[in-house]
Amino acid sequence: MSRILVTGGAGFIGSHLVDELINRGNEVVVYDNFSSGKKEFLDASLSTGKVKLIEGDLLDLEFLTEAMKGIEIVYHLAANPDIRLGTTVTDTDLKQGTIATYNVLESMRINGCKNIAFSSSSVVYGEAKLMPTPEDYGPLFPISLYGASKLGSEGLISAWVGTFGIKAWIFRFANIIGSRGTHGVIFDFIHKLKKDPTRLEVLGNGLQEKSYMEVIDCSRAMIHVVENFNEDLNYVNLGSSDTCSVSRIAEIVINASGFLDANIEFTGGDRGWAGDVPKAMLDVTKLDQSGFNCKFQSDDAVRFTANSLIEEIGLGD
Amino acid sequence: MSRILVTGGAGFIGSHLVDELINRGNEVVVYDNFSSGKKEFLDASLSTGKVKLIEGDLLDLEFLTEAMKGIEIVYHLAANPDIRLGTTVTDTDLKQGTIATYNVLESMRINGCKNIAFSSSSVVYGEAKLMPTPEDYGPLFPISLYGASKLGSEGLISAWVGTFGIKAWIFRFANIIGSRGTHGVIFDFIHKLKKDPTRLEVLGNGLQEKSYMEVIDCSRAMIHVVENFNEDLNYVNLGSSDTCSVSRIAEIVINASGFLDANIEFTGGDRGWAGDVPKAMLDVTKLDQSGFNCKFQSDDAVRFTANSLIEEIGLGD
Repeated sequence: MSRILVTGGAGFIGSHLVDELINRGNEVVVYDNFSSGKKEFLDASLSTGKVKLIEGDLLDLEFLTEAMKGIEIVYHLAANPDIRLGTTVTDTDLKQGTIATYNVLESMRINGCKNIAFSSSSVVYGEAKLMPTPEDYGPLFPISLYGASKLGSEGLISAWVGTFGIKAWIFRFANIIGSRGTHGVIFDFIHKLKKDPTRLEVLGNGLQEKSYMEVIDCSRAMIHVVENFNEDLNYVNLGSSDTCSVSRIAEIVINASGFLDANIEFTGGDRGWAGDVPKAMLDVTKLDQSGFNCKFQSDDAVRFTANSLIEEIGLGD
Repeated sequence: MSRILVTGGAGFIGSHLVDELINRGNEVVVYDNFSSGKKEFLDASLSTGKVKLIEGDLLDLEFLTEAMKGIEIVYHLAANPDIRLGTTVTDTDLKQGTIATYNVLESMRINGCKNIAFSSSSVVYGEAKLMPTPEDYGPLFPISLYGASKLGSEGLISAWVGTFGIKAWIFRFANIIGSRGTHGVIFDFIHKLKKDPTRLEVLGNGLQEKSYMEVIDCSRAMIHVVENFNEDLNYVNLGSSDTCSVSRIAEIVINASGFLDANIEFTGGDRGWAGDVPKAMLDVTKLDQSGFNCKFQSDDAVRFTANSLIEEIGLGD
């Protein structure tokens, strides 16, 4: 049993992680500003009495430092979840990403908390020339402002390891999908079909192709990595071992929706927007060899998610 | 002839760069907060009438945006120059490094300025397993807060290239040394000998070993890289092709000082302080093959610098 703080613990991935941590008998403090998180995502966990919920912003260092008292390990998951936002608003990822991570680390330092697990992303690899991309790949040149905030956060964490002797686990996520999702391609497709069941607009040419990982698999994987990797600084790709294309996702979502006559319309171009990585596939050998097994590969994760989100969002009025 | 803005242009490296840019017939705007820069470093350049000096802080986005009007290329060199500071003050590198770089990029975006050259550092490689370390080395896990700010800045720049279509040149500096230096091992040794000519305390065991590059070589190399590399995102190690140990630097400085009886006293340990990289050697093949030649290798750069700084600082009262 550990006393764990989860930033963004009311969010899409965070709330699933909290469920898994509680299932394993831990005590969890959730720190969330509810910018995209929702209290109802935590209903089941809160009912156990083992979760303390703190509404607060990571940019409030003083308040965060208070919340950090007595914490043994932080799972730092809070971030702006909308990668596309950086094309129009340039300071959100800097603040909610890099500066927020600084505040987490600084509040840990002040309180003597020595362990951090962090949700980084495959977007730190940018447009990698090597696929599947292994963890030691270089150079690291992200093409989105979201990616920059993840790389900036990784650097802060490694500096804290090197300078202040903390221990860290960095997860580089594939595209994480599943129930409670509030953003992303499947979420967008369902909302588009709900609005107009006769057509589905797809950004780009549909050939964008990425690894997808189901969110409960992801939550189990994070805990597995923390329990099984014991360097001062550990960094592991978390994803399934295959990919799914955007046009295939469109087909799966249309099938799941039952709107089988919907016409798929591609906007064209090799990517959805400036800063979108057209192809991403992670080398997950490190995770595999540590003895972790995903329940879902990419296609099944997309199908499972489409069904979950259609149930949550609904297709009627 | 270009209209160029140099951040940190009154500083150690910046002022030498300004000299070289003026020699080549450019118009230069120097933007500096004089936290470590000095107006007298620019005396020669200012006398040409081709330099406009703006005293301002990069954290003042509005003022910076005004200064960016009409600029064609930014050389962004401003930063906290004291790597060791991060062991005791944790927000200086975040503010003067990462956030300052964000402000430079944002003020460029607002003004439609499309070109940035940036002084990154070999410290982004952290404790690299491969030496000499090539530009595509991974993973990138800096161990100092200064290093984190350089990696964070690189990520922001690559994101701006990927999202807003700018062009960038990233220089990963070896240890840059020379006249007008205000920090670093040679500067420290001279001040220690000036205070007590009988002994020289050396942090660590003296076996720390790094590449050194003389600052005029460095300034010429930056301009050479901007003129000769034409990808959207260019990244090049700048250094000499050999190394010099800290104990060798101690000998060279003692010889240059004339205090030949000074006793060298090592504090012990493999590094000077937490966050100090004990060994750093850059693979400079990319720079070499582009046709650039350094005037000085590491040993000669150290000797030349020791003489220059002793002349500037003086050894008497």
